[in-house]
Amino acid sequence: MANPLLRDRDVEFVLYEVLNAEELTALPAFAEHSRETFDLFLGSTRKLAREVLFPAYKPMDEAPPRLENGQVRVHPALREIWPRLAELGIAAASRPAEVGGQSLPLTVAAMGSGYLMAANAAAFGYLGLTSGAAHLIEAFGDERLRKEFMERMYSGEWTGTMALTEPQAGSSLSDVKTRAQPTAEGHYLIAGNKVFISGGDQDFTENVVHLVLARIDGAPPGIKGVSLFCVPKNRRRADHALIDNDCTAAGVFHKLGWKGLPSIALNFGERGDCHGYLVGEANQGIGYMFQMMNEARLMVGMNGVATASVAFHESLEYARTRPQGRPLNSRDPATPQIPIVEHADVRRMLLRQKAIVEGGLSLLATAARFADLSHHSPDPAVRNRSALLLDLLTPIAKSFPAERGFESNALAVQVHGGYGYTSEYLPEAWLRDQKLNSLHEGTTGIQGMDLLGRKVVAQGGAALAAFGQELAAALVRAEAAGLPEQWRNGLSLAAQTVAGLTLHLGTLGLSGDRDGMLLHSADYLEIFSIATLSWQWLILAAAAQEGLTRGGGGDTARDFYQGKLRAAQYWFANELPRVEHLAALCMNGEASYRDVRPEEL
Amino acid sequence: MANPLLRDRDVEFVLYEVLNAEELTALPAFAEHSRETFDLFLGSTRKLAREVLFPAYKPMDEAPPRLENGQVRVHPALREIWPRLAELGIAAASRPAEVGGQSLPLTVAAMGSGYLMAANAAAFGYLGLTSGAAHLIEAFGDERLRKEFMERMYSGEWTGTMALTEPQAGSSLSDVKTRAQPTAEGHYLIAGNKVFISGGDQDFTENVVHLVLARIDGAPPGIKGVSLFCVPKNRRRADHALIDNDCTAAGVFHKLGWKGLPSIALNFGERGDCHGYLVGEANQGIGYMFQMMNEARLMVGMNGVATASVAFHESLEYARTRPQGRPLNSRDPATPQIPIVEHADVRRMLLRQKAIVEGGLSLLATAARFADLSHHSPDPAVRNRSALLLDLLTPIAKSFPAERGFESNALAVQVHGGYGYTSEYLPEAWLRDQKLNSLHEGTTGIQGMDLLGRKVVAQGGAALAAFGQELAAALVRAEAAGLPEQWRNGLSLAAQTVAGLTLHLGTLGLSGDRDGMLLHSADYLEIFSIATLSWQWLILAAAAQEGLTRGGGGDTARDFYQGKLRAAQYWFANELPRVEHLAALCMNGEASYRDVRPEEL
Repeated sequence: MANPLLRDRDVEFVLYEVLNAEELTALPAFAEHSRETFDLFLGSTRKLAREVLFPAYKPMDEAPPRLENGQVRVHPALREIWPRLAELGIAAASRPAEVGGQSLPLTVAAMGSGYLMAANAAAFGYLGLTSGAAHLIEAFGDERLRKEFMERMYSGEWTGTMALTEPQAGSSLSDVKTRAQPTAEGHYLIAGNKVFISGGDQDFTENVVHLVLARIDGAPPGIKGVSLFCVPKNRRRADHALIDNDCTAAGVFHKLGWKGLPSIALNFGERGDCHGYLVGEANQGIGYMFQMMNEARLMVGMNGVATASVAFHESLEYARTRPQGRPLNSRDPATPQIPIVEHADVRRMLLRQKAIVEGGLSLLATAARFADLSHHSPDPAVRNRSALLLDLLTPIAKSFPAERGFESNALAVQVHGGYGYTSEYLPEAWLRDQKLNSLHEGTTGIQGMDLLGRKVVAQGGAALAAFGQELAAALVRAEAAGLPEQWRNGLSLAAQTVAGLTLHLGTLGLSGDRDGMLLHSADYLEIFSIATLSWQWLILAAAAQEGLTRGGGGDTARDFYQGKLRAAQYWFANELPRVEHLAALCMNGEASYRDVRPEEL
Repeated sequence: MANPLLRDRDVEFVLYEVLNAEELTALPAFAEHSRETFDLFLGSTRKLAREVLFPAYKPMDEAPPRLENGQVRVHPALREIWPRLAELGIAAASRPAEVGGQSLPLTVAAMGSGYLMAANAAAFGYLGLTSGAAHLIEAFGDERLRKEFMERMYSGEWTGTMALTEPQAGSSLSDVKTRAQPTAEGHYLIAGNKVFISGGDQDFTENVVHLVLARIDGAPPGIKGVSLFCVPKNRRRADHALIDNDCTAAGVFHKLGWKGLPSIALNFGERGDCHGYLVGEANQGIGYMFQMMNEARLMVGMNGVATASVAFHESLEYARTRPQGRPLNSRDPATPQIPIVEHADVRRMLLRQKAIVEGGLSLLATAARFADLSHHSPDPAVRNRSALLLDLLTPIAKSFPAERGFESNALAVQVHGGYGYTSEYLPEAWLRDQKLNSLHEGTTGIQGMDLLGRKVVAQGGAALAAFGQELAAALVRAEAAGLPEQWRNGLSLAAQTVAGLTLHLGTLGLSGDRDGMLLHSADYLEIFSIATLSWQWLILAAAAQEGLTRGGGGDTARDFYQGKLRAAQYWFANELPRVEHLAALCMNGEASYRDVRPEEL
């Protein structure tokens, strides 16, 4: 059976049985939609993913982009793929009609992206980056920038990038040094070097538009002096011809994965002739960038889920069809070998992948739903509450699929045995791809600090309170569905632990001991992730139990719902209890890595 | 500072302060040795590792072997490296003088191998395989085979391989189908296909000797009908000329890592002219192979440690020199950035690596010491007890460095941030290399079944009893050194938990419920690994505390010993408590993956 990338039934289940996504069509922004239009979008997206993007995955992995005479040459398959992606309008799927979009809820659009990412993360990467960059211009750029750049990006005529990172600064954006010199003509002259610019150059559209963080001459030091600029590879001359804008691809980074998408070192203004156009107001660049950050991080999270999902399905199919060994109690070599899925330890590896992948998918859809409500609910209280929940869940939705997804991808290799180590099979490539997700758009360490240092303490803990309400609602649904008391009690206990721990650490922070508060941010992130996924698995299990109670659909439906209950059982037994151990580490202030001096390492 | 691969001080500490390796020279087999000769060997080995093998690592990773007209072409650097390895006599370092060896304790030789593996796992791979294959001939082959093959292999004139795996059988050796047809001349005609033969062909020596599992015509089915053959690539004609022996390299597997060492699909006897020579007695092949298995698995374990070690040291140096960000309580952008090692979360990632790497190194040396005692103690009781402990520890020593080492290697990438994802830096390559260690020489799943299904229940639990004595001795040493009671109590509790759990599961097995006994073999392996490493860290900490109490050596010595105590503290606080959670899963029979049906996944 061909790899489904994401399983359609899982997507349908999350959208319609877990989240009731049809209800979103009651919001004015989505009024023209219905379950039918959602399904049409998903149908065409998954078809494109399976028929066009997936077959190009391995060829693109094997022949990475090259830099030739200052021009990056990408895999020729992209000349086929890109127009197809553009044609479906995916770059603007969740944007409103007035900017050329389809006004789809992000809840639905994100699932479509999930298929495309699972099929070919690198190919989708160009689109994701273009969409994010265009959205920045849409949100903060003036009419001229929107017309010249945003429209061409949303339509797929040009691509876009995010050019934040500089070699000397890495994640420390307050140390951005790229210079923007005002001119009398209104544009700025940009000069500086950026690294790791994904999709920073390509040869399948006539232009690439960089959204660049830079510092206007005389701006204050640190993040308060960083501005956002739109800097195209080719700029418009007075006669409207496109001319070279002095953005030089100085090198292509060779990477572990995502080999179809070049990561470029870009030099701006080597000849002093690089024009940049200010987006929004001066010195607001970091703020603008961070207003888009949830979106970018959810995209990374969905990529983590998608990359783990495609590998899970590959290893599941392999386990069902690969004969090897015999049952423990019947070793007669005269009997035929059995499919390895019959070995309990192989099922353990598969069930763990399932728990990570399907729990992750539900979390990403849930976060996207809060994004939709935060932007489009007519009720300001719902908007505010949803924004808080989105902010809170973003570091989890970004880092959990990256970290546990990497483990999940390693399990997919392991299920393949020795074959998993070879590139005759695909799982090793997905393992390589997945590692990026713990690094880009804020490392896992940064997500932990963001969660504990900002999100849970924001507005006097308002987000955490709203999260508690969500958990309470899940517990009600679980009880109504008749789920085991043990699962519900487990989640309640974990919620209390998180609340108590947050109070303890927040108090430390308020007392001025920010180091002490954040010492265990990695453990706190892990605890919060386990609790969040337990919440998701309780809802998934409740929806599955509801489905079983409803009946119908025969064996296929029963197997599907039973599988959800098994994965939930796995999660509650194997993962949820870890919360108490990790919380004890935070509470008792285990300090080995605070105290160890660099010389002692 | 150049990467030390393994830190000399760590090796010295484990050998002389933890294990008192000089005492081994009291054994007759090692009587000609002294600490001076040990150090001479280690000195020349580490010099070769650092000056010759390590510089060739990246070139070999970048240009994997190719198959050209039936001949595998490996990286030309091997023509320089191989004679140097041969010259040092490393293939036979731990073998006795009568077979051309140096009679070094494995405890010492393994450390030498560790340096070479950390420098260049692929280059060392040819040597490790040659040594293992030659040792099989030494142990079970007749004089003719020893003269023709073993001597040339130990001296480095020819290389060797282990040809076990067949495409349809994988780990299931009872399903080996390769055929051996007796002839009147005494040799056998071999016919069959093997896959994943590491070093299965190369072009830097005139011959390659395969140790092949095959089935003599009429042999019983299953493992009781498998014999071991010596099958050279080129065989000796009556006139002593070497002629082609009909072993065809049919393909080179493309792999995630270990790119300098080809993994080959070999066809034996395509033309019906492949001669094989029986090693030992007919139908004893599996038994012979498994008598060498401890050795091979310890080598994999040391590779796991070495691959994690070289990456740990790379990331430690990076963290000490890479400036980025500022202290949490002082974010003034006008101040210079600080080295990332100043961030507590970076130190967490480094300390975790240290705990895995240095604990693993100590475990491997400890296992090697039991191997030495099991072969060379004049006291049969010591030999027997040491063999039991070696058998018991082997699955841990093989799988812990593979699994936690992979995590450790991922942390080394993470410490490098975005740069870690690029092949401009080395950690991504070591991450790729490390993944093999959970797969070859018995997957981690197989190690778990071996530990629980065989090792802990062997001879009425004699190995576990001896292990308990080792723990008790460590507790005495720890108390004498003045280590915290909490650590000692933690280890005692874990030991009780392991004993109780083993009794429970062993009883299940005795009652005939082998499925139930082995259901949680993965958890059991994890529990046993954590307890074993806690034992190691207690001894390491005791030796460090002894060093501190002894005094001397100034700041450097104090920092070194303090670092050990920090890592021990980390391990006891963060890892040891996980035992209770995992044991509860085994005791309560959590059965999600037993019960889940393939259709439900």
